[in-house]
Amino acid sequence: MSNKDNRFGLAVAQMGPVQLAEDRTTVVRRLLEMMREAAARGAKMVVFPELALTTFFPRYWMEDQAEVDARFFEAEMPGPQTRPLFELAARLRIGFYLGYGELTPDGHHYNTAILVDETARIVARYRKIHLPGHSDHKPDAPFQHLEKKYFEVGNDGFGVTDMLGTRIGQCLCNDRRWPETYRVMSLQSARIVTLGYNTPSWNIHWNEPPHLRMFHHLLSLQANAYQNGLWVAAAAKCGFEDGFHMIGGSAIVAPSGEIVAQAQGEEDEVIFASCDLQLGETFLQHVFNFAKHRRPEHYRLIVERTGAGAPLAPSELST
Amino acid sequence: MSNKDNRFGLAVAQMGPVQLAEDRTTVVRRLLEMMREAAARGAKMVVFPELALTTFFPRYWMEDQAEVDARFFEAEMPGPQTRPLFELAARLRIGFYLGYGELTPDGHHYNTAILVDETARIVARYRKIHLPGHSDHKPDAPFQHLEKKYFEVGNDGFGVTDMLGTRIGQCLCNDRRWPETYRVMSLQSARIVTLGYNTPSWNIHWNEPPHLRMFHHLLSLQANAYQNGLWVAAAAKCGFEDGFHMIGGSAIVAPSGEIVAQAQGEEDEVIFASCDLQLGETFLQHVFNFAKHRRPEHYRLIVERTGAGAPLAPSELST
Repeated sequence: MSNKDNRFGLAVAQMGPVQLAEDRTTVVRRLLEMMREAAARGAKMVVFPELALTTFFPRYWMEDQAEVDARFFEAEMPGPQTRPLFELAARLRIGFYLGYGELTPDGHHYNTAILVDETARIVARYRKIHLPGHSDHKPDAPFQHLEKKYFEVGNDGFGVTDMLGTRIGQCLCNDRRWPETYRVMSLQSARIVTLGYNTPSWNIHWNEPPHLRMFHHLLSLQANAYQNGLWVAAAAKCGFEDGFHMIGGSAIVAPSGEIVAQAQGEEDEVIFASCDLQLGETFLQHVFNFAKHRRPEHYRLIVERTGAGAPLAPSELST
Repeated sequence: MSNKDNRFGLAVAQMGPVQLAEDRTTVVRRLLEMMREAAARGAKMVVFPELALTTFFPRYWMEDQAEVDARFFEAEMPGPQTRPLFELAARLRIGFYLGYGELTPDGHHYNTAILVDETARIVARYRKIHLPGHSDHKPDAPFQHLEKKYFEVGNDGFGVTDMLGTRIGQCLCNDRRWPETYRVMSLQSARIVTLGYNTPSWNIHWNEPPHLRMFHHLLSLQANAYQNGLWVAAAAKCGFEDGFHMIGGSAIVAPSGEIVAQAQGEEDEVIFASCDLQLGETFLQHVFNFAKHRRPEHYRLIVERTGAGAPLAPSELST
């Protein structure tokens, strides 16, 4: 069923670690190099990680917000240090996804990603919705996971954007574990879901076997790609950042749930796939023909409850 | 974190094929034998397949509804031929899940499953919601998939029942591919999801590589067990029924997403796991703490749309 017209060159640029002391100029230089490699392979777009410009700073408890803002947040996009990314994208006619800490003019903080088209125009912005971790200081933990301290919950929903001849959605890191994320985007006919992540190899809450972290990451991508008939492109920042290890496993997953490209290490690495956008249609016309098979009258609880509660009677469960 | 008090002996009784010519008495004898084996291993309950009492008849186009009713549907449960299952369950003090074609007194047809407790009382009934396939005759197809002809869409929702000291939900076959199924049950604090299935090895709609059928089956169980912090117990009817092959792969999946027991062949086979019910709590208190992390204000589309549509603006996406 595939033909060349349906092919979409998709690249994921995994990043090795960014140390606390590194500056944006050095980081952007690495991103530019990977953007060039992606374009040379024939990519229409390249997906960079979450918070790609800095170390994964939510691992640190910091009290001086002005310093946090200056070191870890972008007050403008592009700004002086990130403008080269936009300039190169326009020159190479390649789109990109980039994650960064967003500081708005009125002082709000979001864990944000943007989609930039092949003319270097920002065509969509996503602000992370499923913030993991905590907001309080846990001095006994080996490191912090303070996304609930440094960021507000995103207020834009899970949007989908027409771009580069297809429909692309965005999410970030922990969002990938929640099936609602992908479903809201597939209900808007997304064909590709892009996401960046920083995933510590250790769980600060319990003694989780670390191999499960990689397994859960890939399992979530694969199942949700399959169940929504779409491509998933996931970019890690990984390796040891100042002694704190994060998983790699950047991957491009087909609507069949199969991993068609996966990073091999924990360094900067571009992976690429020539994605058959028709493959998803095949699933969406048959087993996952939403219009024919979905039954939202029985899904009410998904929006009516936040936390889990007691069982309900049939008359309370469905419309 | 596990201790013996949290252990729940869970068995899945996979069935080899049931040929069109076989009668219920022969089939029930096989189920009784597996129930005995499950109880002997220490199971508190045993999960039987979907439409366990007959061949997977939706593969046949049949026009004489009276004959269909008589051959493939149960007008009472227990009835004369199924009563031995209930009697043995009470004697062995074992609960069970059983799938069958339900004909109601007022003439409705459902693809149904029941939960029966260790006193042989029916404590819950589930009528299949995600009916796959079609309702029209497709004479050019190698076989039919007429669930939309023979059954009505279930009207009871995805219920959860207090039973055997825990909370158990039910679904059937194709339901397992839809993340909404499990989420509605985890929002009612289900700790175990039971399901039976009959899954043809070939897709009548397109040339799907048959190995993907098994992959998608296991992928769906594993991801949804993980993403909802619950156990999944899945029982196949499999092998060649009158020349039509169905996948096996009966499995018990932990809330870690790991397969802890899996059937080895395509015959009658009991698999068993001593399930640590505390394992799910660990996930549900941290990464999947629903009350802390879920954001239903951004999930509206899941209930507001059935089929996929155009992208929406942020203001239309969220509450």
